Amino acid sequence: MAPAPVVNRTAHAFDKTNLDAVLARRFFYAPAFEIYGGVAGLYDYGPTGSSLQANILDAWRKHYIIEEDMLELDTTMLTLSDVLKTSGHVDKFTDWMTKDVKTGEIYRADHLVEAVLEARLKGDKEARGVKEDPNAAKDEDEKKKKKKSKVKSTAVKLEDEVVAEYEHVLAQIDNYTGADLYELIKKHKITNPSTDNELTEPVEFNLMFESNIGPTGHIKGYLRPETAQGHFVNFARLLEFNNGRVPFASAQIGKSFRNEISPRQGLLRVREFTMAEIEHFVDPADKKHARFNEVKDIVLALLPKDVQMEGKSDTVFMAIGDAVAQGIVDNETLGYFLARTQLFLTKIGIDPKRMRLRQHMANEMAHYATDCWDFEIQSSYGWIECVGCADRSAYDLSVHQARTKTPLRVQQRREHPITVEKLECVFDNKKFGIAFKKDAGTIKETLLSSDKERLQCIKDELAKDGKSKVKCSDGKSYEITSDLVSIEPKTVVEHVREFVPNVIEPSFGIGRILYSLLEHSYWAREQDKARGVLSFPVLVAPIKVLIVAISNDPKLTEVIHELTRKLRKYGIASRVDDSGASIGKKYARNDELGTPFGCTVDFATLQNGTITLRERDTTAQLIGKIDDVIAVAAELVAGTLDWDGAGQKLEAYSGVQDVQDQDA
Amino acid sequence: MAPAPVVNRTAHAFDKTNLDAVLARRFFYAPAFEIYGGVAGLYDYGPTGSSLQANILDAWRKHYIIEEDMLELDTTMLTLSDVLKTSGHVDKFTDWMTKDVKTGEIYRADHLVEAVLEARLKGDKEARGVKEDPNAAKDEDEKKKKKKSKVKSTAVKLEDEVVAEYEHVLAQIDNYTGADLYELIKKHKITNPSTDNELTEPVEFNLMFESNIGPTGHIKGYLRPETAQGHFVNFARLLEFNNGRVPFASAQIGKSFRNEISPRQGLLRVREFTMAEIEHFVDPADKKHARFNEVKDIVLALLPKDVQMEGKSDTVFMAIGDAVAQGIVDNETLGYFLARTQLFLTKIGIDPKRMRLRQHMANEMAHYATDCWDFEIQSSYGWIECVGCADRSAYDLSVHQARTKTPLRVQQRREHPITVEKLECVFDNKKFGIAFKKDAGTIKETLLSSDKERLQCIKDELAKDGKSKVKCSDGKSYEITSDLVSIEPKTVVEHVREFVPNVIEPSFGIGRILYSLLEHSYWAREQDKARGVLSFPVLVAPIKVLIVAISNDPKLTEVIHELTRKLRKYGIASRVDDSGASIGKKYARNDELGTPFGCTVDFATLQNGTITLRERDTTAQLIGKIDDVIAVAAELVAGTLDWDGAGQKLEAYSGVQDVQDQDA
Repeated sequence: MAPAPVVNRTAHAFDKTNLDAVLARRFFYAPAFEIYGGVAGLYDYGPTGSSLQANILDAWRKHYIIEEDMLELDTTMLTLSDVLKTSGHVDKFTDWMTKDVKTGEIYRADHLVEAVLEARLKGDKEARGVKEDPNAAKDEDEKKKKKKSKVKSTAVKLEDEVVAEYEHVLAQIDNYTGADLYELIKKHKITNPSTDNELTEPVEFNLMFESNIGPTGHIKGYLRPETAQGHFVNFARLLEFNNGRVPFASAQIGKSFRNEISPRQGLLRVREFTMAEIEHFVDPADKKHARFNEVKDIVLALLPKDVQMEGKSDTVFMAIGDAVAQGIVDNETLGYFLARTQLFLTKIGIDPKRMRLRQHMANEMAHYATDCWDFEIQSSYGWIECVGCADRSAYDLSVHQARTKTPLRVQQRREHPITVEKLECVFDNKKFGIAFKKDAGTIKETLLSSDKERLQCIKDELAKDGKSKVKCSDGKSYEITSDLVSIEPKTVVEHVREFVPNVIEPSFGIGRILYSLLEHSYWAREQDKARGVLSFPVLVAPIKVLIVAISNDPKLTEVIHELTRKLRKYGIASRVDDSGASIGKKYARNDELGTPFGCTVDFATLQNGTITLRERDTTAQLIGKIDDVIAVAAELVAGTLDWDGAGQKLEAYSGVQDVQDQDA
Repeated sequence: MAPAPVVNRTAHAFDKTNLDAVLARRFFYAPAFEIYGGVAGLYDYGPTGSSLQANILDAWRKHYIIEEDMLELDTTMLTLSDVLKTSGHVDKFTDWMTKDVKTGEIYRADHLVEAVLEARLKGDKEARGVKEDPNAAKDEDEKKKKKKSKVKSTAVKLEDEVVAEYEHVLAQIDNYTGADLYELIKKHKITNPSTDNELTEPVEFNLMFESNIGPTGHIKGYLRPETAQGHFVNFARLLEFNNGRVPFASAQIGKSFRNEISPRQGLLRVREFTMAEIEHFVDPADKKHARFNEVKDIVLALLPKDVQMEGKSDTVFMAIGDAVAQGIVDNETLGYFLARTQLFLTKIGIDPKRMRLRQHMANEMAHYATDCWDFEIQSSYGWIECVGCADRSAYDLSVHQARTKTPLRVQQRREHPITVEKLECVFDNKKFGIAFKKDAGTIKETLLSSDKERLQCIKDELAKDGKSKVKCSDGKSYEITSDLVSIEPKTVVEHVREFVPNVIEPSFGIGRILYSLLEHSYWAREQDKARGVLSFPVLVAPIKVLIVAISNDPKLTEVIHELTRKLRKYGIASRVDDSGASIGKKYARNDELGTPFGCTVDFATLQNGTITLRERDTTAQLIGKIDDVIAVAAELVAGTLDWDGAGQKLEAYSGVQDVQDQDA
């Protein structure tokens, strides 16, 4: 029996410098085209990072797509400009950009204003002698913003009303237009922090990468900024695949692109990134979820919008069942995904104590969303949005349907047909044609597709003034008169209910999750602070088993080959370290790779056919016959056995390697 | 015991129209942004296609990356223009494009010339009354080209010498420049086949999508046309990760992009596609492979260049061990990958009788390759390149090394140091500086990095004429004289051997393989030709188990839920068909999805706790207790049991479903 010693990972202060060194040395990731000088916001994943990412995505696919029978998609990144025009991205997917008037250096205007005012407030605090509380959430956010901007503070005391004004500005920094930001820049004398030169009026910069498709130059395309539109334009086929019924979900894992103005923060803000997105299509009148009961008792750390509006950041711990019942989380489907996502993040190794769910306030919601909760994960950069769970309502399907005239809606046969009062347009076709000529069709179409409220409005105007203005899909307004069309109430029996489904969208930034996981997994041993350990769960560890021999004796090498073959048979990712380093050093190197188990071959192997099995976090070792150890390792990797269980199948071992392990 | 009936799939003629209908109906793939009219060369994969692709990629990852301990990478698609300038893609990755002088319609010039001349030759044959042999390989190629071009032939007899000339042109169609193609267009009066208008002189069109990175407009980037460059620019880090030793391989799965001039042929020629590429770095002096023995007896269908140069297309069946021994395949490493790739393709379901390995002839090799073998797979489009296995020599690493001055080479300590004769440049530094001023450094660098042959040449010229021209990395030539520099022989003892590794690259076009697999898997039952079956191997089938009930009785629905939960526990992708269709219809629908097994719940389930298990290809059924059937299904899916084996664990069944299956 080998009891698993408790490893206290959080006792040691997190050392970002050491972690960064490990990530570079072990090639988790590196700047893309580094030998060409690199480009900000583009990173390549090396063998360890790629494997970690592949394992996270594999876990994601099983947790969501397989478990929930989702319909997986793989749609193109190159996207026709029309699609993104309709979705609103061509017009609204922009940031405000300002330039140094002399050097041309470019900043994202809101980030710069925010950074400068925060630096001034910090300087004010220093001047007033206010000490920072390193544990306060507020300060975490400041730390994050400081890192982002690299704007240094100087201890200068500000007038009280200036402090109040700065705080007011910062509270609504997401609400300003370019003109507003320019006003702020001028009023508060904000200059380029690195040159002190003045800044230009902010201009809009679209964050999408543009390219031409085909040789003509006439087909404009963008690299998609999200995978979501690929789901929406395929909705009709997906619905048919699902026998015409909702709810169902589509899911897609793939790259998206955002041409950030000046990306910093490593993997957290990049120009090309892996996303995993789910679009769950649901009846707007019934957002219950069939499996909600399975998750209702899961407790989440919530930061609702009301709490934030009061200027607080206290999380509320609450079972998702209660949160939905109390209306804090809008509906079961949204709640189901929030709870399932917490399970997923915890499963892959994110520290549950360092995640929270922050609800978007009205002013920060994307143009398509009606409600949104972000999974924020805490790292040295502060609390970072890693998964957004938005209710996109019927926005996207409605706009694509209107633009393409393709029905993107569900038809549901009513068991009990209902009688509904409708408003019907009765045209005097001849007069209508003469009055509007070639536009007659467009106007009719607009009227016929208007909802009841709109028609009632027109009906009232016609009754009152004999005329009414109708804004049509061609963007123009036409005046109709009561001699051309009348709007009459009509009773109809509806056998079929038609509706555009709403969309609940959990959207995962895989790179951000991966980086957070690296921070949460990293620690150093008491006896050797410089030696890092990445304590990944077995599920996502890039390499599962390290294989080493105590010497380069050819007989041992033969056993190593045999071990490798056997592990391969189980499909276990293993790695032989046959370098000249000592056993202790080899263990240390593989602790940095996050390899959870190590098999060691020594001379006892040749005599007794035994090898040892080491556990990464505790450095505890077990011993047994080769095939027994491999069988145990296979179970450990499959997750059907834990280390305590392994200790019941194999003997505890405290031999020569243990000593060397300590020495290395 | 249930013996597996033999199903004769090849007995029925392949029906592409039916297959296309199944692929659309079951949403394997569809044109991207179809509701917006689509764009040529861009396709979205639906649930079945995505899942099929994910399973192929998973099999690929296990077959290569895990099995061979390869270093996986995930590098950016956005690529700095400098990188692709160095690799030669900015200058050489082009096709010749010609336009209709009136309509502006665009054609790829070589494809058009080829198509028109072939159509005329075909018309000539028709006029001469020559019958086509539908089985001849030659005709397969013509069929393929006809599909590509959509140029119709008319029965017009040509002069014998014209026929000979056309055949000569077609034989070297890949060798022509734009000017050559224009000559051909004028000489042979080639016009736009759809308008009969004249065509413009062909211009070069670069096949890379271009975009700007960042807001300045100064950083030019391209979407990568291959993943390979991402491996090469990371070579130094990869080598370090592998403890400084070769051979090792890196591998990457990801999208690449080619802005094809006028893509046709469905998934076979697209603008955005998934690749899986391996770059195996090897000592140029030792291309043996440690595991070659394991594959040496595998027989491949080879089409060597000599055979092709004789104008033949007869494949040679040969064990790869013999092919390497006879020098037909250049080396063990290349041979190893050829054999392993045949194993992979066969494993995922490609018909071994419909693949061959065609060696590139000198005139068609990519600009970087020194030898290349293509796995061609036969489909209704003819023989299509699906995997290219190229020896890229030291080309890429050498050019990146020269451009970036970053060492991309291996240093190997010599066990026995050797004495080598070198040529050394001895400069008169003062005179040299005065003569060349700011260019002195560049010229010196060029001389110092020149190889022995080049230096010997300069030495001879200096001895003869007292001067020599040196072409430098800045593109200019400088004249050096013997008073500025002398080149002297020198004997040095080398303790370290330095070399730039060669690269063997197997490069997989996943979409082409996937499409070929669809054709090879598709057949129709004798009794119902319109009902298609996609006989995917279990390994890659999108859904593994269909679950159906004989009626919508709520008690049966409960069992269905239980079955679903249990299969999920095993991680098996299953699908419930709870539509109102008959059992037979449900089976038929899932045969079209390629689902290999079906579990059926009937009223006997409620009485005896039994369910049946159906095999897709034979429609044979077994029966057993629920848990026994699930255990057998899990083994079938894992590949540890075949249908014969299943028949030994469960009873044969020929009950009511079988009858309905026939009726549907």
